[in-house]
Amino acid sequence: MTQNIYDNPEFFAGYSRLDRSVEGLEGAAEWPALKALLPDMRGLEVVDLGCGFGWFCRWAREQGAARVLGVDVSEKMLARARDTTIDPAITYLRADLERLELREAAFDLAYSSLALHYIDDLPALLGRVHCALRPGGHLVFSAEHPIFTAPANPGWSVDAAGRKTWPVDNYLCEGPRRTDWLAKGVVKQHRTLGTYLNLLLRLGFALAHVEEWGPTDEQIAAHPSWAEARQRPMFLLVSARR
Amino acid sequence: MTQNIYDNPEFFAGYSRLDRSVEGLEGAAEWPALKALLPDMRGLEVVDLGCGFGWFCRWAREQGAARVLGVDVSEKMLARARDTTIDPAITYLRADLERLELREAAFDLAYSSLALHYIDDLPALLGRVHCALRPGGHLVFSAEHPIFTAPANPGWSVDAAGRKTWPVDNYLCEGPRRTDWLAKGVVKQHRTLGTYLNLLLRLGFALAHVEEWGPTDEQIAAHPSWAEARQRPMFLLVSARR
Repeated sequence: MTQNIYDNPEFFAGYSRLDRSVEGLEGAAEWPALKALLPDMRGLEVVDLGCGFGWFCRWAREQGAARVLGVDVSEKMLARARDTTIDPAITYLRADLERLELREAAFDLAYSSLALHYIDDLPALLGRVHCALRPGGHLVFSAEHPIFTAPANPGWSVDAAGRKTWPVDNYLCEGPRRTDWLAKGVVKQHRTLGTYLNLLLRLGFALAHVEEWGPTDEQIAAHPSWAEARQRPMFLLVSARR
Repeated sequence: MTQNIYDNPEFFAGYSRLDRSVEGLEGAAEWPALKALLPDMRGLEVVDLGCGFGWFCRWAREQGAARVLGVDVSEKMLARARDTTIDPAITYLRADLERLELREAAFDLAYSSLALHYIDDLPALLGRVHCALRPGGHLVFSAEHPIFTAPANPGWSVDAAGRKTWPVDNYLCEGPRRTDWLAKGVVKQHRTLGTYLNLLLRLGFALAHVEEWGPTDEQIAAHPSWAEARQRPMFLLVSARR
């Protein structure tokens, strides 16, 4: 079972203060790039795996999605999602994604933002997602980039020449990584980029786009601190079709 | 035009002493994994982009390929390839891959081992390769992994805890990297993994497999020093179909 860190009070308090929690999708640096991978939402049946506060579910409906199912393991996040949603076409479901059952061929789009790197049995989840999509249906997700999740001791270091570098090790050693981010002992699952992609290919997905996200020049002009993401990617964005 | 470093006497002498130059394909750590991505070779028309000493061209014929065209920019390498090949179905062509013209729909397999990271205008080359493949034809290549090519100052460093790490920077800053490997000032082109894959997808290739190569347990038992490749991948292996 995936660790439910979002219901840890310290983690939840910290997460609630992030730009992406306060401002929603527009507060997430990678959102414009992820949005560009999405199909025309009009009339689509959508499932959001790890929906959090429900920002994407509500956005999908604003764009014309027919129905949206938001799934999350966090009681605290879903409580806020429900409090801020008045739309009978959005359903929130509390479930561990590791055990989620989805109807077959019921969705046109499966979306997931920064949730899949918490999943231990990703092959099983993606297999169920493949079954739950209609033929031609879309899978669009972001996850923490393997370069970001790999290190035993993640964090910038400064080399002899004064250059900031990201010390990669254990890249090909897949498995859990315990890190301290917003709370102590957050468990993420490191897997290589090849593993993510080959999982999709073996399930029968056709890959459409693979993006190692970095900020645009305009974003850096507005947020100079984001420039460090060009040194090593933090997010992986993928779109694929059943 | 791509730098023709292989005809630099110092580089050529050093390269000629590598296991992969002395022992051929079996001397290359990643060969078993790359071989596993190849189709049944019987009856295929094959082009090898960056054929070097011609080891793969000869192997392809041993496996039943109908005809093999080996292309390389290095005069010294092709001279040795010609000296060690007695097979009228293998043709060696000296050409800069940046300017190579290939007949349309003439090949069943385009193969390239550790050459594409030297190519400046990779979109143009891969576009010509796509045209040169028959529908359903295969592209199988290896290249230096972007984690390996990214750093301004590539090389292991040892962190405070005594752990060997690979300091990544400039990952999203694509372009030339000058390194000293076998000779001074070898120019490689760094591009992200996403860029490699999206180039293929936009050309109409379907991705079949993406591997960030690491040694197997058996390989490490036989060659303990190879274990460091698990800390950060050195090679990217890709197979795709037109």
